[in-house]
Amino acid sequence: MSDHTSGLAQAIERVVALGGLDASAMVSTSVRLDSLTKPPGSLGRLESLAIQLAGITGDLTRTYSRRAIVVAAADHGVVRQGVSAYPADVTPQMVANFLAGGAAINVLAARVGATVSVVDAGVAGAIPAVGAGAATLIRVPIRAGTDDMTAGPAMSHDEALRAIGIGLDVVAALEHDGVELIGIGEMGIGNTTAASAITAAITGADPDAVTGRGTGLDATARAHKVAVVRRGLEVNRPAADDGLDVLAKIGGFEIAGLAGVILAGASRRVPVALDGFIAGAAALIAVALAPAARHALLASHRSAEPGHAVALAHLGLAPYLDLDLRLGEGTGAALFVHLARAAAAIYGEMATFKSAGVDGPV
Amino acid sequence: MSDHTSGLAQAIERVVALGGLDASAMVSTSVRLDSLTKPPGSLGRLESLAIQLAGITGDLTRTYSRRAIVVAAADHGVVRQGVSAYPADVTPQMVANFLAGGAAINVLAARVGATVSVVDAGVAGAIPAVGAGAATLIRVPIRAGTDDMTAGPAMSHDEALRAIGIGLDVVAALEHDGVELIGIGEMGIGNTTAASAITAAITGADPDAVTGRGTGLDATARAHKVAVVRRGLEVNRPAADDGLDVLAKIGGFEIAGLAGVILAGASRRVPVALDGFIAGAAALIAVALAPAARHALLASHRSAEPGHAVALAHLGLAPYLDLDLRLGEGTGAALFVHLARAAAAIYGEMATFKSAGVDGPV
Repeated sequence: MSDHTSGLAQAIERVVALGGLDASAMVSTSVRLDSLTKPPGSLGRLESLAIQLAGITGDLTRTYSRRAIVVAAADHGVVRQGVSAYPADVTPQMVANFLAGGAAINVLAARVGATVSVVDAGVAGAIPAVGAGAATLIRVPIRAGTDDMTAGPAMSHDEALRAIGIGLDVVAALEHDGVELIGIGEMGIGNTTAASAITAAITGADPDAVTGRGTGLDATARAHKVAVVRRGLEVNRPAADDGLDVLAKIGGFEIAGLAGVILAGASRRVPVALDGFIAGAAALIAVALAPAARHALLASHRSAEPGHAVALAHLGLAPYLDLDLRLGEGTGAALFVHLARAAAAIYGEMATFKSAGVDGPV
Repeated sequence: MSDHTSGLAQAIERVVALGGLDASAMVSTSVRLDSLTKPPGSLGRLESLAIQLAGITGDLTRTYSRRAIVVAAADHGVVRQGVSAYPADVTPQMVANFLAGGAAINVLAARVGATVSVVDAGVAGAIPAVGAGAATLIRVPIRAGTDDMTAGPAMSHDEALRAIGIGLDVVAALEHDGVELIGIGEMGIGNTTAASAITAAITGADPDAVTGRGTGLDATARAHKVAVVRRGLEVNRPAADDGLDVLAKIGGFEIAGLAGVILAGASRRVPVALDGFIAGAAALIAVALAPAARHALLASHRSAEPGHAVALAHLGLAPYLDLDLRLGEGTGAALFVHLARAAAAIYGEMATFKSAGVDGPV
């Protein structure tokens, strides 16, 4: 067993050992929510979110005062098949933009006071030098992008394990800094193609149903992308119930890293807010590896990418926001952080009927 | 023409004079959004929200650094018919809770840095003395609650005009303080009954389709509430196209005040974020009085109350959030403020492809 295998095995063991949600914390939260000065249940999904957070953390006192967005970036060999509206150079250029603070995720993370950690898990081109400081760069690339999945596996099993390990290490460092809530996003030209292939492989959906326009393909280009996804699946024949096999054959380094973040979050009772379609594909991988990891996940929003709803349904997650986002980077997760903190504040800060001297139902 | 009539007439004249949205500001916003480092349109409704805000304000530089939640409170004579799960005493008790800072709206307004102004437009009981400071109380009651709409008009036309005037005055004062965004909510035991009657009268929907469980009625009690709404409509026969007539006959003082807030916001190009069902009924009244007022409105969320979707469809507004909220108080509007500020920040703070050195589509 290599070190990487053992790191993953330990994370999976911890996820299994923790089991599901903390039922006692959820009941306590529910009881208190019903004592607050509002009709029971009248804050709807904000209340169920407060209950879910308590179940994940087992801790009724959290205010999520420290939160982080992890943006994993990597390139994809499959871009050679012409599946993206943008050139692969955009991956390192956008990493530089994250570091300089000009991207959407910088703006939205700042609005919720979240730090941004950018993880180079396998960016192909050189990252332009910029006046950085808006985000932390963690440079741990496996190599300069995956291989083309239409010609064979995207990466080896050992590389997949190492890339998952990146995510495990990132969360260990964040938790050391006291992070209580992690949102995950990504950047990687071509990665909706990998996410479509993963979603089709694990959920059994037809590639046509889970392949969208990505960053802006027209109908003809989307049809070509569907054919590329089909070819990737036919050439590799990943085993649907083997998360590592699916990941290695048709995945990406950033997707592997995010799967590691999810497993580490789940093993440490740190809630992980998914972003869109690619984060959803990472969740499919993580949950294939350790089904109980599902309990740590919060579905921030439903992306405009058609495969996202399929992935969320497979995961049994109901999205909180539905704003037709399809950018990635963790933007939907950052918007969701506001809801999570609002839910925790409702639980922690409202008066009870008794303390406020308000009458209950007649 | 009384002073009150002339105040309303002036507000309506100003709404008409301003006309619709500022098309030039909307086009400028759209062009800039497409120059930012993201695929065009990939932030979905966050982008359409930025465009709508520009259209309302005509100002591309706003950050909504000052924002206010206006919570109008009043009592309803129709509670004598047994339409609420809670006693009428809860209205003044909850006003005291707003002032002490223990209510949901206090918690959620604080999360977005919004002030809370509580307007007593006609609360029946004495407001308990509390250690206040969490909200500003504006005591301008028309009288101690409306009359029972099942026995005649809820209020006179003159009272309706005066109650609308309350909202006009509140907005004038807020705008003097530099407020750039107003969210509206309410408190008033019995007011979903009035909102159901207004929604049925103005949209033509059957009372059964727009009458919900309010603060928590069972099926039998809801059926009784439907019958009460029907009786209110039969006894009063409000003229569907006459907002003042509908308001006076089957409305409430807080609903009138919120209609005034909407008209004043629209006349001053201050965006008004609706909350749930009762705020939606106030919007139906305001738009019946001045159709162009619709352009100042933002539908924060879709309430769990069935009549809310009917009201929003009639107003032509698409809600941004769908979280099964049914509390009122402005809670949904407060959550929405985060989205509005996020949309403005995306417009104002992101880098362009050119400034960041990021390639566009191939």
